[in-house]
Amino acid sequence: MKKPIGIVIGSESDLPLIKETTNILDFFGIGYDLTISSAHRSPKRTIDYAKNAQKRGFRVLIVGAGAAAHLAGVIAAETHLPVIGIPIDSSPLQGFDSLLSTVQMPGGVPVATMAVGKAGARNAGIFAVQILSLSDSKIEEKMIKYKQKLAKEVVVKANNLKRQGNS
Amino acid sequence: MKKPIGIVIGSESDLPLIKETTNILDFFGIGYDLTISSAHRSPKRTIDYAKNAQKRGFRVLIVGAGAAAHLAGVIAAETHLPVIGIPIDSSPLQGFDSLLSTVQMPGGVPVATMAVGKAGARNAGIFAVQILSLSDSKIEEKMIKYKQKLAKEVVVKANNLKRQGNS
Amino acid sequence: MKKPIGIVIGSESDLPLIKETTNILDFFGIGYDLTISSAHRSPKRTIDYAKNAQKRGFRVLIVGAGAAAHLAGVIAAETHLPVIGIPIDSSPLQGFDSLLSTVQMPGGVPVATMAVGKAGARNAGIFAVQILSLSDSKIEEKMIKYKQKLAKEVVVKANNLKRQGNS
Amino acid sequence: MKKPIGIVIGSESDLPLIKETTNILDFFGIGYDLTISSAHRSPKRTIDYAKNAQKRGFRVLIVGAGAAAHLAGVIAAETHLPVIGIPIDSSPLQGFDSLLSTVQMPGGVPVATMAVGKAGARNAGIFAVQILSLSDSKIEEKMIKYKQKLAKEVVVKANNLKRQGNS
Amino acid sequence: MKKPIGIVIGSESDLPLIKETTNILDFFGIGYDLTISSAHRSPKRTIDYAKNAQKRGFRVLIVGAGAAAHLAGVIAAETHLPVIGIPIDSSPLQGFDSLLSTVQMPGGVPVATMAVGKAGARNAGIFAVQILSLSDSKIEEKMIKYKQKLAKEVVVKANNLKRQGNS
Amino acid sequence: MKKPIGIVIGSESDLPLIKETTNILDFFGIGYDLTISSAHRSPKRTIDYAKNAQKRGFRVLIVGAGAAAHLAGVIAAETHLPVIGIPIDSSPLQGFDSLLSTVQMPGGVPVATMAVGKAGARNAGIFAVQILSLSDSKIEEKMIKYKQKLAKEVVVKANNLKRQGNS
Amino acid sequence: MKKPIGIVIGSESDLPLIKETTNILDFFGIGYDLTISSAHRSPKRTIDYAKNAQKRGFRVLIVGAGAAAHLAGVIAAETHLPVIGIPIDSSPLQGFDSLLSTVQMPGGVPVATMAVGKAGARNAGIFAVQILSLSDSKIEEKMIKYKQKLAKEVVVKANNLKRQGNS
Amino acid sequence: MKKPIGIVIGSESDLPLIKETTNILDFFGIGYDLTISSAHRSPKRTIDYAKNAQKRGFRVLIVGAGAAAHLAGVIAAETHLPVIGIPIDSSPLQGFDSLLSTVQMPGGVPVATMAVGKAGARNAGIFAVQILSLSDSKIEEKMIKYKQKLAKEVVVKANNLKRQGNS
Repeated sequence: MKKPIGIVIGSESDLPLIKETTNILDFFGIGYDLTISSAHRSPKRTIDYAKNAQKRGFRVLIVGAGAAAHLAGVIAAETHLPVIGIPIDSSPLQGFDSLLSTVQMPGGVPVATMAVGKAGARNAGIFAVQILSLSDSKIEEKMIKYKQKLAKEVVVKANNLKRQGNS
Repeated sequence: MKKPIGIVIGSESDLPLIKETTNILDFFGIGYDLTISSAHRSPKRTIDYAKNAQKRGFRVLIVGAGAAAHLAGVIAAETHLPVIGIPIDSSPLQGFDSLLSTVQMPGGVPVATMAVGKAGARNAGIFAVQILSLSDSKIEEKMIKYKQKLAKEVVVKANNLKRQGNS
Repeated sequence: MKKPIGIVIGSESDLPLIKETTNILDFFGIGYDLTISSAHRSPKRTIDYAKNAQKRGFRVLIVGAGAAAHLAGVIAAETHLPVIGIPIDSSPLQGFDSLLSTVQMPGGVPVATMAVGKAGARNAGIFAVQILSLSDSKIEEKMIKYKQKLAKEVVVKANNLKRQGNS
Repeated sequence: MKKPIGIVIGSESDLPLIKETTNILDFFGIGYDLTISSAHRSPKRTIDYAKNAQKRGFRVLIVGAGAAAHLAGVIAAETHLPVIGIPIDSSPLQGFDSLLSTVQMPGGVPVATMAVGKAGARNAGIFAVQILSLSDSKIEEKMIKYKQKLAKEVVVKANNLKRQGNS
Repeated sequence: MKKPIGIVIGSESDLPLIKETTNILDFFGIGYDLTISSAHRSPKRTIDYAKNAQKRGFRVLIVGAGAAAHLAGVIAAETHLPVIGIPIDSSPLQGFDSLLSTVQMPGGVPVATMAVGKAGARNAGIFAVQILSLSDSKIEEKMIKYKQKLAKEVVVKANNLKRQGNS
Repeated sequence: MKKPIGIVIGSESDLPLIKETTNILDFFGIGYDLTISSAHRSPKRTIDYAKNAQKRGFRVLIVGAGAAAHLAGVIAAETHLPVIGIPIDSSPLQGFDSLLSTVQMPGGVPVATMAVGKAGARNAGIFAVQILSLSDSKIEEKMIKYKQKLAKEVVVKANNLKRQGNS
Repeated sequence: MKKPIGIVIGSESDLPLIKETTNILDFFGIGYDLTISSAHRSPKRTIDYAKNAQKRGFRVLIVGAGAAAHLAGVIAAETHLPVIGIPIDSSPLQGFDSLLSTVQMPGGVPVATMAVGKAGARNAGIFAVQILSLSDSKIEEKMIKYKQKLAKEVVVKANNLKRQGNS
Repeated sequence: MKKPIGIVIGSESDLPLIKETTNILDFFGIGYDLTISSAHRSPKRTIDYAKNAQKRGFRVLIVGAGAAAHLAGVIAAETHLPVIGIPIDSSPLQGFDSLLSTVQMPGGVPVATMAVGKAGARNAGIFAVQILSLSDSKIEEKMIKYKQKLAKEVVVKANNLKRQGNS
């Protein structure tokens, strides 16, 4: 079966962060392909990846990069598939550079940008699943349950707090 | 026929900007419902909107708001549909506030954030169409042509420039 | 006796910080209820909390959250009680995101915003007490003494410095 | 009858902005005294104002200032009344300076900070009324109606939009 | 004769700004080719441009772009010619986005970044000439005179000021 | 008689702003010499100016510059006279660049930095007078009166406001 | 003999930083008085300090504070002595708050602002000495030698580097 | 043989960072001279360095500095050789100060600015080599291979990832 999600990171050092994304996809049982490519160091590889993305069966692409994070934009320029961008805080400017480089795309070529860092990596996975759930009612059901689980976890934590005598 | 796109803006003053979004949807012949609701001034209306979004047939929601732009996040909290956020630069802080309020969503509840202002409003429409094109080959074809048109427009402008003697 | 202060934090990880707030309330002998709820992960719980806040006897609400910190704004939207917001620096953007998300509320729905982090958590408690002291002369007296104590502590530290021979 | 709200602005040029605050207080029928004083140019006047604020019957103070906006903090240092700060965007740095100068108060002396500019000026009035409504059920009723009015206005605007054929 | 400078701008609206660059090149009598291409809207055209740049005889490339300004980086990825980037302030974020997107290039693929806006456009031209002057003593002489002229213009202005009685 | 204050601006376009400085010096009857010199365009002239500043009888130097505002730092490097810097908001980055370039001087070579723009230009004059007043009791008296005048002007404005019925 | 320099810090935790300032004054053999006072926690003490500063023989005041750093401005408001401000990076916002709160003083009441943190603390001492050297030729001589020493230290370090074979 | 590259850093503490630059030059077998000089502490030395740079045979200058990083600009003012600037994040403001001080050069005197920190230091070396390769086909060949190596390294890392079972 074809894997619906293609994930690209710009550097080996982004691997721990992207684990947040793949954990979500594993949880939902959705296949993905994870690779490394750089907009600047391996441009041909990046462009080929983007151009072939649809043929390989990908339906959504997730891209994480730091600093002048062009990777998501460069991929979005070469495919009509939805591209989700994760700005990574890997330079001294703490993610302000990767956030602005990812989100401020010019009219015509959108990148759906997530939060800087860990939360964004996790949400990239969830957003991809939300897109897939539009045409797959099983995934949709799981997503509805996932959101309920999020709410329940909050209640559990609040109850723990209560038991510890905070009210 | 049901309209697949629900658009919500936080204030009447956001209407000129959201025209960039609806122009795109009109171009692709995709139906949408545009309304005004505020996360803070009309919270119940906003929550009801989000809760009923799927039943009304919406598949993707587009949300534009300025300042402490909570609207997209509040709607994303109440639906599992993909939510696209447009940060609007309507406060003295020029969009830095709406950008950070929209994009920095905590792990669990993503908002797909576009660029601040006009470019973002246009791209929200395009990204919504990209999602819909995953399950509609006619829209997909149009999107492929749209991207080709973008490239052709650049060539036309470059040729005009050449004719004016810039090279 | 009813507890006049309701405190909500968005995440378990905010507990050490909120200790700064509860220490102040304990010092003034003012009852409070502390719970966890998320604007995005448990929206219904959050809204119910806000709607029932007055019935439960709360007079002031204190809300701490990080990143795209919508929690205080979402609660303020559902109650006419005064809401005090503490921006927490829990994302890579160091609190610029939570500060702007908390303070830049649109006209109509204020959140009284405190400093980012520890100082803000402490001040949220003090500000709540200042509000309560408007209708309780015993608390007011204590607050006047507290402010005098702050001044005296400065003198003690200055005198220590002098004794160490800095002048 | 004594006026419960004292308003201080740092400069004559802040008068148009503070109209947003006084409009709200006029709407709620709450008396206020508006004056000009500067933390830096007229420090004695400012300190005397703060020290006598309670004797004059003020219950809440609202302070608007721009640039290195020390005014609210200086007043908060001299009174135990709740102080609400409005950061004004009157320097080339567009309000980032007044926002940080107003909100980043050290532990011990809070200033309840509102949004930069117009929205903040309006909300300062509303927050002051919310505090007063804790001990005045007539004001409280008005405040509840005011919040309902905010929601209704949104509905009216949304209906206008619908009538114009946006859905 | 082959033109040694290739100039690319991302959008027609950048034409007035790039006049600052071409004025400098005209002054030094250095040939250039000016065209429009977009990293995102016409990626193939952009990549082809970069790949053929050397064959066409270009020795230095000058690239101006706004918002998430990927254009200079994308071109630098496909050529070993020196690439000079001009960040353009065309979005609501006033050039902070284009500056960070242009300058924060990852290790391996530099873009020589100039100031945001007009000064940067002018300096891109001067820097290109400085590079060419390394292997062309006539251009070098002109550049030495140009720098002397800059200094003389300051003296003329200072003298004018003196004559007007400022000292 | 020798003029005690030397003023240098980096560009002709800074003249209207520096009027704020010279107005203050005129008011205090203190002589000054105003000239234009650029750290980058006329470095020799700037260095000579700084080196000869003391011989010419200057006791304090005031320097205004925009963008990467090196002028004050370059002058401070060549003289032991106190140097006051005015960051000017003349680039698209609104003074954040000139402020940081002026104030963030490394240990060893201070520049006494004033606010960005008009307020800073005025304060540069006042601060220079404060320094001179340390060794001239007539200037000191005038400065004491000036500060009293500032306070009185606030009272006049407050009284005008009162007469217009704001209290 | 009277001490010419008064130093005030807002908090005990600023002591290590202010050592950079007192080291400079010790090096130049200039007497100083170091104390703690807070603009917000001990306002009366702060104001009394500023009012009596001249009578106590101080000629220059050095003030260090963090967060919403009002201390230098509040002191400057109550004295006509020159006030030097050191912004301290003690909040999560890394000194952007203390820098803007210290430097953006309104027209009329200057604070001579130094760099954030250590470099600024050292430079505050140097700038104070530069002011004193205007009326004391012995200090002036020392300052001239100090600046020569700075240059020599650079040469020593460069020579060390050379000996290690870097050229 | 003359060394074509002159490298200047403002402080001994910048040595580890500049290793990124010299590693690149060593890799390409290009000679360089590395020294320390400060725009502010040793201005004469800095100016002499810049003035003699061409006579010494340097063709490109690389300059690294932190905080109010004037060093590159001061050197660029005194030579017509191309100057490459590396902003170093050595102050509490994390490189925003050195970036803006380096890049925002006024029209007339460019500094080719690289990324803040390590990536920028590495790229300064590469950019210098790119300039030299314009007139040296051996270096050019090496540069073309270097860029191919960058791309190959990405492939190796991607393959490693694949072998570990990520797809």
